[in-house]
Amino acid sequence: MTTCIGDCLACYRTCLSSAMGHCLEAGGKHVEKAHFTLMMACAEICRTSAHFMLIGTPHHKHTCAECAEICTECADDCERLGGMDDCVAACRRCAESCRRMASTH
Amino acid sequence: MTTCIGDCLACYRTCLSSAMGHCLEAGGKHVEKAHFTLMMACAEICRTSAHFMLIGTPHHKHTCAECAEICTECADDCERLGGMDDCVAACRRCAESCRRMASTH
Amino acid sequence: MTTCIGDCLACYRTCLSSAMGHCLEAGGKHVEKAHFTLMMACAEICRTSAHFMLIGTPHHKHTCAECAEICTECADDCERLGGMDDCVAACRRCAESCRRMASTH
Amino acid sequence: MTTCIGDCLACYRTCLSSAMGHCLEAGGKHVEKAHFTLMMACAEICRTSAHFMLIGTPHHKHTCAECAEICTECADDCERLGGMDDCVAACRRCAESCRRMASTH
Repeated sequence: MTTCIGDCLACYRTCLSSAMGHCLEAGGKHVEKAHFTLMMACAEICRTSAHFMLIGTPHHKHTCAECAEICTECADDCERLGGMDDCVAACRRCAESCRRMASTH
Repeated sequence: MTTCIGDCLACYRTCLSSAMGHCLEAGGKHVEKAHFTLMMACAEICRTSAHFMLIGTPHHKHTCAECAEICTECADDCERLGGMDDCVAACRRCAESCRRMASTH
Repeated sequence: MTTCIGDCLACYRTCLSSAMGHCLEAGGKHVEKAHFTLMMACAEICRTSAHFMLIGTPHHKHTCAECAEICTECADDCERLGGMDDCVAACRRCAESCRRMASTH
Repeated sequence: MTTCIGDCLACYRTCLSSAMGHCLEAGGKHVEKAHFTLMMACAEICRTSAHFMLIGTPHHKHTCAECAEICTECADDCERLGGMDDCVAACRRCAESCRRMASTH
């Protein structure tokens, strides 16, 4: 679980700073509503999933499942736009980590 | 959706202030790990569901569904303990509101 | 304090939904880095100030003081851009409320 | 700044998981209102300071200054209680890092 918390916080950092840095500076398709909202949703669910694991609630499985889904969608969208390799990598790693956490018995 | 955002933030306020006020002051079963963690998980998912609706992501349906589930569990647990009528009422109202939001097409 | 919590959460709602709705849709100067970052900083400090009051920490005076400062700056910037009357009003009200809270003995 | 963000998130993790794990399990003075509230305030200001640095707002200096103050107070209180060495270390490191950030020109 320690790894998953780390992956969630790393993805939160990368998505939030990329959206508010790279995307706002690049403009154009990077600030289109669908893409930018997905970036911010990804940052927020990563932050919340980490929080749920840190407080020790069994509901972390549900937030991790949702986190895996949003991270995958965000990675795909960042790949489509291009020039966001850090974000793609952080999202893929977090999605994998959360998927594993969500299916642990 | 405006109503649901209001219900989520109202439940966040009540759960968080009840946990950190009433529960810490009452002690005993009110600070037992299972109950206290549930209160804090409820406050956090309400905060996040409101956030998702405010940023306008379609994934708010999933956080609302999870919010409805945790709020119902929290209301039941607060009823079991007794003396937490405000919390029960806020959780029931939010659960109902989020359930409706999660099933909207 | 109940009023101030309400004003902070109302300003959080308005700033966050305006930034992610109105500003992203309007584009142009509304998604310039300085303005958009200020909107998001305002939403976050309002969320945090409300949180500090809800958990009952005496440090809420410092977050309220900072909140009043950022809200005032955000209101001024929204006035400069125009077409953001809701945001200006919510920020002015919250700034006033937080300033009073920060100076309470 | 990257170091300070890391120190804030590390302190957020340690404070939140210690409060919701160690403190709730230990009970007694660990769940007394003043101590527990300080732990939660520390977790929240660390989370917010990291957020401010990540979005790139110049106001991060003010949240970092407040973060340094709360972290120092939290470290002192954890030392007083004893058995919370991880928390003391994370708070001291974060306080130092935030103090430096707050005074950077």
